[in-house]
Amino acid sequence: MKNEQLEVNSMQKAQVLVQALPYIQKYAGKIVVIKYGGNAMINQELKEAVMGDVTLLSLIGVKVVLVHGGGPEITAMLKKIGKQSEFVNGLRVTDKETMDIVQMVLAGKINKDLVNMLNNLGGKAVGLSGVDGHMIKAIPQDTALGYVGKINGINTDIILDMLEKGYVPVISTVGCDTENQTYNINADTAAARIAGALKAESFIAMTDTPGILRKKDDPETLISSINVSEAPQLIREEIISGGMIPKVECCIEAIRQGVNRVFIIDGRVPHAVLVELLTDEGIGTMFK
Amino acid sequence: MKNEQLEVNSMQKAQVLVQALPYIQKYAGKIVVIKYGGNAMINQELKEAVMGDVTLLSLIGVKVVLVHGGGPEITAMLKKIGKQSEFVNGLRVTDKETMDIVQMVLAGKINKDLVNMLNNLGGKAVGLSGVDGHMIKAIPQDTALGYVGKINGINTDIILDMLEKGYVPVISTVGCDTENQTYNINADTAAARIAGALKAESFIAMTDTPGILRKKDDPETLISSINVSEAPQLIREEIISGGMIPKVECCIEAIRQGVNRVFIIDGRVPHAVLVELLTDEGIGTMFK
Amino acid sequence: MKNEQLEVNSMQKAQVLVQALPYIQKYAGKIVVIKYGGNAMINQELKEAVMGDVTLLSLIGVKVVLVHGGGPEITAMLKKIGKQSEFVNGLRVTDKETMDIVQMVLAGKINKDLVNMLNNLGGKAVGLSGVDGHMIKAIPQDTALGYVGKINGINTDIILDMLEKGYVPVISTVGCDTENQTYNINADTAAARIAGALKAESFIAMTDTPGILRKKDDPETLISSINVSEAPQLIREEIISGGMIPKVECCIEAIRQGVNRVFIIDGRVPHAVLVELLTDEGIGTMFK
Amino acid sequence: MKNEQLEVNSMQKAQVLVQALPYIQKYAGKIVVIKYGGNAMINQELKEAVMGDVTLLSLIGVKVVLVHGGGPEITAMLKKIGKQSEFVNGLRVTDKETMDIVQMVLAGKINKDLVNMLNNLGGKAVGLSGVDGHMIKAIPQDTALGYVGKINGINTDIILDMLEKGYVPVISTVGCDTENQTYNINADTAAARIAGALKAESFIAMTDTPGILRKKDDPETLISSINVSEAPQLIREEIISGGMIPKVECCIEAIRQGVNRVFIIDGRVPHAVLVELLTDEGIGTMFK
Amino acid sequence: MKNEQLEVNSMQKAQVLVQALPYIQKYAGKIVVIKYGGNAMINQELKEAVMGDVTLLSLIGVKVVLVHGGGPEITAMLKKIGKQSEFVNGLRVTDKETMDIVQMVLAGKINKDLVNMLNNLGGKAVGLSGVDGHMIKAIPQDTALGYVGKINGINTDIILDMLEKGYVPVISTVGCDTENQTYNINADTAAARIAGALKAESFIAMTDTPGILRKKDDPETLISSINVSEAPQLIREEIISGGMIPKVECCIEAIRQGVNRVFIIDGRVPHAVLVELLTDEGIGTMFK
Amino acid sequence: MKNEQLEVNSMQKAQVLVQALPYIQKYAGKIVVIKYGGNAMINQELKEAVMGDVTLLSLIGVKVVLVHGGGPEITAMLKKIGKQSEFVNGLRVTDKETMDIVQMVLAGKINKDLVNMLNNLGGKAVGLSGVDGHMIKAIPQDTALGYVGKINGINTDIILDMLEKGYVPVISTVGCDTENQTYNINADTAAARIAGALKAESFIAMTDTPGILRKKDDPETLISSINVSEAPQLIREEIISGGMIPKVECCIEAIRQGVNRVFIIDGRVPHAVLVELLTDEGIGTMFK
Repeated sequence: MKNEQLEVNSMQKAQVLVQALPYIQKYAGKIVVIKYGGNAMINQELKEAVMGDVTLLSLIGVKVVLVHGGGPEITAMLKKIGKQSEFVNGLRVTDKETMDIVQMVLAGKINKDLVNMLNNLGGKAVGLSGVDGHMIKAIPQDTALGYVGKINGINTDIILDMLEKGYVPVISTVGCDTENQTYNINADTAAARIAGALKAESFIAMTDTPGILRKKDDPETLISSINVSEAPQLIREEIISGGMIPKVECCIEAIRQGVNRVFIIDGRVPHAVLVELLTDEGIGTMFK
Repeated sequence: MKNEQLEVNSMQKAQVLVQALPYIQKYAGKIVVIKYGGNAMINQELKEAVMGDVTLLSLIGVKVVLVHGGGPEITAMLKKIGKQSEFVNGLRVTDKETMDIVQMVLAGKINKDLVNMLNNLGGKAVGLSGVDGHMIKAIPQDTALGYVGKINGINTDIILDMLEKGYVPVISTVGCDTENQTYNINADTAAARIAGALKAESFIAMTDTPGILRKKDDPETLISSINVSEAPQLIREEIISGGMIPKVECCIEAIRQGVNRVFIIDGRVPHAVLVELLTDEGIGTMFK
Repeated sequence: MKNEQLEVNSMQKAQVLVQALPYIQKYAGKIVVIKYGGNAMINQELKEAVMGDVTLLSLIGVKVVLVHGGGPEITAMLKKIGKQSEFVNGLRVTDKETMDIVQMVLAGKINKDLVNMLNNLGGKAVGLSGVDGHMIKAIPQDTALGYVGKINGINTDIILDMLEKGYVPVISTVGCDTENQTYNINADTAAARIAGALKAESFIAMTDTPGILRKKDDPETLISSINVSEAPQLIREEIISGGMIPKVECCIEAIRQGVNRVFIIDGRVPHAVLVELLTDEGIGTMFK
Repeated sequence: MKNEQLEVNSMQKAQVLVQALPYIQKYAGKIVVIKYGGNAMINQELKEAVMGDVTLLSLIGVKVVLVHGGGPEITAMLKKIGKQSEFVNGLRVTDKETMDIVQMVLAGKINKDLVNMLNNLGGKAVGLSGVDGHMIKAIPQDTALGYVGKINGINTDIILDMLEKGYVPVISTVGCDTENQTYNINADTAAARIAGALKAESFIAMTDTPGILRKKDDPETLISSINVSEAPQLIREEIISGGMIPKVECCIEAIRQGVNRVFIIDGRVPHAVLVELLTDEGIGTMFK
Repeated sequence: MKNEQLEVNSMQKAQVLVQALPYIQKYAGKIVVIKYGGNAMINQELKEAVMGDVTLLSLIGVKVVLVHGGGPEITAMLKKIGKQSEFVNGLRVTDKETMDIVQMVLAGKINKDLVNMLNNLGGKAVGLSGVDGHMIKAIPQDTALGYVGKINGINTDIILDMLEKGYVPVISTVGCDTENQTYNINADTAAARIAGALKAESFIAMTDTPGILRKKDDPETLISSINVSEAPQLIREEIISGGMIPKVECCIEAIRQGVNRVFIIDGRVPHAVLVELLTDEGIGTMFK
Repeated sequence: MKNEQLEVNSMQKAQVLVQALPYIQKYAGKIVVIKYGGNAMINQELKEAVMGDVTLLSLIGVKVVLVHGGGPEITAMLKKIGKQSEFVNGLRVTDKETMDIVQMVLAGKINKDLVNMLNNLGGKAVGLSGVDGHMIKAIPQDTALGYVGKINGINTDIILDMLEKGYVPVISTVGCDTENQTYNINADTAAARIAGALKAESFIAMTDTPGILRKKDDPETLISSINVSEAPQLIREEIISGGMIPKVECCIEAIRQGVNRVFIIDGRVPHAVLVELLTDEGIGTMFK
């Protein structure tokens, strides 16, 4: 990539910056919620690119809220303590010990490491969990699943307080109830609900696919824009299938709750967030 | 205790409240940093009492900052993953894997559980680590000890922002540097340094002793007040000895940095914080 | 009382404070209007207890508004100048000379003495009359009664300005019109109307009875709570009778204007206000 | 006067307003303390003129603080209750009963009547005494004189709070101590001290003379301006003599404490305040 | 005039000021839009009188917005460059060169000269055009007329920002579109529309007539007040005729858009604005 | 240029944006004063590029102040009215008629056209002259030169008020005195003085040269950075000569008054401002 970059002359640089102008105007002072996960979280170079993008957006006046998951690190830690997980209908049962690991990895490890990176890049970040300021209120989703939680309320006060003070809130999706219990909350769902509760301008879900493809595995068939009403048909046609279904449902829910622009983008492309938000080259699939 | 309590009539209740008046006046709007640890953190009843005290203080206008350690839970977790710790001069070497566990337990588990309790008691709490807002800047204390950190800067911005917004900051003492590394910081030291940097009105260190005793094990010989200048002599006389020495040094450091009133109190006594701050019955040892 | 008090140990003190927690949460930042009068105003020890209670409430964040009457002192002063009062239907005619005395005693003597006490207890009080900031607008109630006024408007601006600046407004119930005339206003009525206009959280009327008693003179028959709709029946049954009727009507009016919780309490019990507001031992009668 | 007035045509009116322009510029947003007393307080027409002037000044942005005395009304009231005053060195001894009358007449009667008039003229006034907000702190001046007070501190907080909220503070000069005692304070002294503590732009003392006359009783010999350093010589020459001496001393004290412009004006001239402040026709004597 | 003025004594001056009181109360903090033009702009003495009036009004708290035209100076400048204007239906065609002259004379010359005068009189003025802050949005009124613009939107943000910061906005009526084009806007129309968009308290149009006269040329027949509904009849009767018709239509439009009080006054009378606003001698014609 | 641009792929675009990050951090919230003139003002494409740059900088949080000259348009207008200029020592004498033209062209034409463009690009601009808010105070520089002014005071209040309200102030350098006179002020000098008075972070002077060249006409010999102390020697060596001398003196003056970073850049290069401020490719000469 370095070679390519050397060829960009100062005039072209200025052009790129100038072309970003209308996008900066559109997003200045607006809230953008980014669901961060997948490869972009595992690959160190991609991680740094995303953190750079978040810092840049924050500096030019976009109010970024970063919501992260943490599947692989949780699995690694469970393995390390020799925990055997039970499964019910293919879903992992979250007992007390598992919940502790989930909470520790998300809120203690991943969250703080992301905050550290953002701060070192010149941002001003604070790590929050759904427990802080009673942000994500939860109830058990299914008693058979233990501490897997279902959201029954989002309190955006602490997020708005932090944004007002100029911080980038980095959120790990641990839920809480009124009995001092914590819950494991699906990060996609939580991110979409937070975006909805904040009436965000934009919600961006990072995935490990180029977006929704009309023909599986053929990036050329990327559907760049989907109307919410078309989604059921696409599911029936199995164009949207498997793990993509719940992600799409989150996006639709965000739209329904008043988020203006919702995207699924390819987290494996460096700076995908920046390209999506600040250039005229849309990548991924937009919902409307 | 319930029996005794039944005997307190409404007039006496009013008296207690009225007697708290001058203390409320003294601390209203002032910052009180509490180092929370030891038995008060392990015993569930004591833990609830402390959280109740913090919530009450916060509601009557005291700006409480709660700094916590977490030794036993860290040890338990290390044991769970079968980690054998090396020791150098009696100090545990904190390698990368150990540091991850320290950070997870402190910032992910204990911190969020305390926040959850405070919120459920009607407080408004937020969990922070020394990484958030670049609060605790650290460098390695001794290369032989790995990621054991020495504080080389406290940034109180994020604490003050949270206090201004009405939150009780609950702080886990993980330090950060500019290279995305985190460090294990001694909680007593960090709490004292934070109190100093905030120019707190009061710093309270909770211990598992009644305070400083002239005759070991004889609570009757409690020294209720020590002048900073007397401390060296008391150490020579071995009245202050063992694990109490570094605690006393932290207290002296806090005084030197401008904290007004510094106490060592007995965390095993329920509501010791409240009794110390809001009644005329001082408990523990005060430094001046 | 001192003996009893000595028996309250530090643990019990902490318990009392902790039990006040939910009440402090309920009233923090809320407006509480207290009608102060009767024995609690004559007996010096009771007066000091009430002023202590007001100061405490104010310090823990309750916005207290103190409205006072002054019957006995007015009578004494009239006697001193040898004024013979005329009566019409049992009501004292307030001629110009009488009105001057009323105004002087209320706004000049009692009001300022209460302000002085509150300030000396560590509060921050300001004395106001219904004339200041055109607070209580009045018209003659009955031309035969002279300057006895009927409220025809409450302007809460000056009260809210004072509360915002952190003062406890102490109000003497002198009314004004647009012709530079002042009026003698019934303090119970004025206090209830002020509470209503402020949409206060609570209105507390201090009386010289234990509350509303089912059997006159038997404190055991105290009715702890009355529904507004039950009042007419209780009046017909003469359970509410005599001087209590107008007091009850004021309470009902306050409820109707949107005050949340209205109490008649026994001003002869020291710290009755504190016991009512901050402990679980309700005293007196509550209207709902 | 009506005849004269009819002759002022609309052009002349505009001229007068335009000529006031530089004076309005000078005083806009500045504090002017007016000591109000003497004939201007007794004569109803003069009183209305002064209140009109204060309202006008307040409306055009001058921060007026009105400090009043009340000698004659106090004397009348003492007479009414048949109180015989003792005198020590020609000064009236203020016993408890006398102090009560002083306080009632000043803070209860005169103060509230002035506030009422100002409000009815369209101003926004609040009556304060030296007790409110612990404004005038006093100690006994001479034990033989009882509750005659000497100022030992001015707390301007409440005055500044009121000015900020747009009120004209009307102040009766009752002092307070920390023992719930009130004191009779000389109004000239208090007004000058308040002006000094507020670093007022201007202090105006209303008297019943045309100002300082070189030849007694000859208004043609008015000294329009006196340098503070000239005063002792004028006293020696008995040009300043009798009751004028303490008034002049107050003016000098105000200058010393940083008041910019200090005037003695003739309160018997209608609208003397307005003429002094807003026209080019200085009346009275200015100190510098 | 000097002679007359000498006869106004200090008492009369005070009377004039006091009589202005209710008018100052009425306009304090309110927005008054003044359309400035005609003789009052050409005659140097009148110009200074108007600028003095504006400064005085601004100082006593009226939020004055001054909108000016500039016909004669534009004509003079066009003549200087030897520009021959074409006319269509009696209206001057504004080609590009003419538009440049209009913009330069209005926004560059007249506007800045007025600002300079106001500032030198002690005001705090800023010159704006309809281009600044996209204030006056325009489209071509008639393609045959070139850059003569028709208002299609008023953005009051910049006016309100300036008023909030204490400036007197002086506005030249150059309009703008989104294509970087500017337009020549009729000043009467623009002033009325600005007054309407600001929901001004008052709109004053300065003319070179005494107001609307029942009999042409007989000032004795001045109609001091017209109801908006009477206007059509007055036009039919030719009492309102010629150049007065569009002025009256502007006044009616202002009333319709919510301006409270609308006046046509005689700009040839010195200080007409002040006399109209601050004395009881209404001059000119009021619309209601 | 379009061709080149097409070759920049989305990854490169992101890289450019990311590389701008540290520069955005450096300038966010800081004041940058740009002296705009020369070719960049005449060539329409360059003009649009500069306005785009200013808008972009403003949107990402830089507080841009744009100061412009207008030589060629003034000359054109003088020619149009057939004005023959006199010269004294090679300097044009600015008589009253010339001054009027200068003021009209600068403040009425160029200024408003720039504001119009900025607003249409999505910025929020306001046009000011040195007359507005008494910003540039001037006295005659030399009586022989007429209304050529010398700055004797900069009042930055109005600039700071506008920046606080979010506007880009566009300033034409017409000066004012207290006698309603206006003056023609050299734009370079005024811009540097304004930058100094604002303690700007950066002052950028646009010229029609690549910067300071060691060998005239050889861009390869550009001196990229000059220490203020080196300037006299460079003038002696005639490396800095002719019209560049006063420009360099302005830059040095700005540095002396506390501006942090001062640049001379080539206004003929499109987006030179952006390249200088937001990329690592410095162009032009920097003073330190």
